[in-house]
Amino acid sequence: MGILVVGSVALDTVSTPFGEVRDVLGGSAIYFSCAASYFTSVRIVAVVGNDFPHETLDFLRERGVDTSGIARADGETFRWSGSYGEEMGDATTLCTLLNVFQNFRPHVPTTHRREDYLFLANIDPELQMSVLDQVENPRLVICDTMNFWINGKRPDLEALLRRVDVLIVNETEAKSLAGESNPVRAARVIHRMGPSHVVIKMGEHGVLLLGEGKIYRLPAFPVEEVRDPTGAGDAFAGGFVGALAESGDLSLEGMHRALLAGTVTASFTVEAFSLNGLRDVDRQGVEQRCRELEEIAGWSWARNGVGTPRR
Amino acid sequence: MGILVVGSVALDTVSTPFGEVRDVLGGSAIYFSCAASYFTSVRIVAVVGNDFPHETLDFLRERGVDTSGIARADGETFRWSGSYGEEMGDATTLCTLLNVFQNFRPHVPTTHRREDYLFLANIDPELQMSVLDQVENPRLVICDTMNFWINGKRPDLEALLRRVDVLIVNETEAKSLAGESNPVRAARVIHRMGPSHVVIKMGEHGVLLLGEGKIYRLPAFPVEEVRDPTGAGDAFAGGFVGALAESGDLSLEGMHRALLAGTVTASFTVEAFSLNGLRDVDRQGVEQRCRELEEIAGWSWARNGVGTPRR
Repeated sequence: MGILVVGSVALDTVSTPFGEVRDVLGGSAIYFSCAASYFTSVRIVAVVGNDFPHETLDFLRERGVDTSGIARADGETFRWSGSYGEEMGDATTLCTLLNVFQNFRPHVPTTHRREDYLFLANIDPELQMSVLDQVENPRLVICDTMNFWINGKRPDLEALLRRVDVLIVNETEAKSLAGESNPVRAARVIHRMGPSHVVIKMGEHGVLLLGEGKIYRLPAFPVEEVRDPTGAGDAFAGGFVGALAESGDLSLEGMHRALLAGTVTASFTVEAFSLNGLRDVDRQGVEQRCRELEEIAGWSWARNGVGTPRR
Repeated sequence: MGILVVGSVALDTVSTPFGEVRDVLGGSAIYFSCAASYFTSVRIVAVVGNDFPHETLDFLRERGVDTSGIARADGETFRWSGSYGEEMGDATTLCTLLNVFQNFRPHVPTTHRREDYLFLANIDPELQMSVLDQVENPRLVICDTMNFWINGKRPDLEALLRRVDVLIVNETEAKSLAGESNPVRAARVIHRMGPSHVVIKMGEHGVLLLGEGKIYRLPAFPVEEVRDPTGAGDAFAGGFVGALAESGDLSLEGMHRALLAGTVTASFTVEAFSLNGLRDVDRQGVEQRCRELEEIAGWSWARNGVGTPRR
C-alpha cells in the first residue's frame, strides 16, 4: 500500500499579497509526501545539493516518509522564485535555477521498487519514463506534467501516457494537451491517449474526474484567505494518492472519494506559506475538514437519505 | 405553491461562434418561466410593445404559464443584442433598446398578488421594490440584480435587499456588491445586507449557496458544447425557484437540492440558441439529467452508503 514519489525538492522564494518568504522548503516531492503521509507510507526519490539543510526534512521522517532515496549531488539545490498577484492564479516565475536538478537521473534503490503506487511528479517525461522502467509492476501509476513538457517534449510525453493509469493536470494543461477548449472534451481526448482516469484540477473551482466514460466533480474546500498557492497541486495529488493507497479502493467511487482527501490537503496548503499550513494539521484535522467538505458537496444530505430527490 | 415573476420580455439578437439569431424570444421573465414551468405554475408581470408576436408565448401558456399580466404598451418591444467570443463568458452587449421597457411601471393584477413565491428578475431595484409592495405576504422573495444597479442605484438596492430572502447573483456581481475578492467572504457580506440565503452562480463552475452561516456547492452539469449562454442565469433561477415551490422544502437541504433543478434547466438552455434547448425537453428529460448530476456530484455514492468515507 506504500507510495513511491519521484519529483523535486526545492528551496522556494515566494511573494504574494500576504508577504514574502526566501529559500523555504518546497518542491513537488515534498508537498506530495507531506500530504500523502496522513494516509500511508511514502518513499521519495529526488536530488538535493550539498547546501541543502537536511534537518528541514525531519518532520517528514517523523511521519514515516522515507527520505533515504534523496540523493545528494555536488552543487546547489534546485531553486524556484515566483510571485502571485491579487487574483492568486498562476504564479509569475521570476527565476528558476535547476542547479543539481539539471543532471538529475533518478535512480530507484532496490528497496524502493516494489511500492504499489507510483507518483511521477512534474519532471521531464524522459525521466518519468526511466523511473517507470525501474519499478516492479506497480498497481497504479499516477502522473503530473506541465505546459513546458506538453509543448517541448510531446512525443516523450505521449509515449509515457500510454503507460500511465491516472493523469493529474490543471485545466490549462489539459486543454493544451488535448487541443480542446472544453474541459470535459479535453478529459475524453486525454483518456484516449492512455490514462484510464483523468483528473483535472480547477483551483478554487474544484476538480473533475473522468473514468469509465463518466464525469465526476468535487468542489474545492472554500478557503476564505488564500495566502500562498504554491504546492497546492502536489498537495492535492498527495492527499488523493495517499487516500487511494490507504483504502486500496480503485473503483470509480473510491476515486471520487479520494478526491476529498486531495482537496482537503490542498486547502491546508494554500492557507499559509510553504509547508506551514499543511504540516501543522493532524490526521484528525484532515478528517474533520473532509467531513465538512462532504457537507459542502451535499454528500451528507444524500447519505442521510432524507427525502431523496426522486421526483 | 405558485410563482409570480416580474422581469423582461425581449427580442434578442445574439451571435456566438456557433451562429447568429435575430429578434428571437428572450428576456429574464421568459427564461425564468419556461424553466420554472417544469415544476409549478407561474404568472408573469412584464411589458411588450405592439410589435410583439404574441403567438411565440403559446408554448408557455400550454405549460400553465399565465401570461395575462404581460401588458401591451404603445411602441416597440425591448431589444437586446449581444455577442459571445470563443470563451463564452460574459456577452459583449452591442445594443440595448429599452423601448416600452423604459416606462415600465409594473402593475400586479389582483389575481396575481397571492402567489407564495416571488421572483424579482434583474430590473431597476425601485421597480422591484414597487412590486414587493403590491404583493401579499409571499412565503419567499427571491431577487436577481446586476452591476448596472449595484453601481448606479446602490441605496435602492440596499433597501430592497433588506426585504429579500434569497439573492441570486453571478460571481462578478457578488464581489462587486460586497466589495470582496473572495466569493465565500462576498456571500457572507451580502447575507449581512439582508438575504437569509445567497446563491452565487459561477457559470461552468457551478453554484455556491450560503445559508445559516454554512457554504454549499453544486457543480455545473458538464455541457460539452455551449452554443449560446444567453438566459442561463434566469433559467437557473427558474429551475431553482420552481423546484422550491414544488417541494415547499425551504430547509437548507431543500435549497441545496433545488440547485440541482436550476443547474439542469440552465444546462439545457446553453445547449441551443434562445429558448430552443430548454423548451424542447420534457419533465422526464429534466429528471433524467438531475439524476445524472447527482451522480456527477457524488450524491449517488453517498446515498448508497457503500463504504461511507469515515476514516
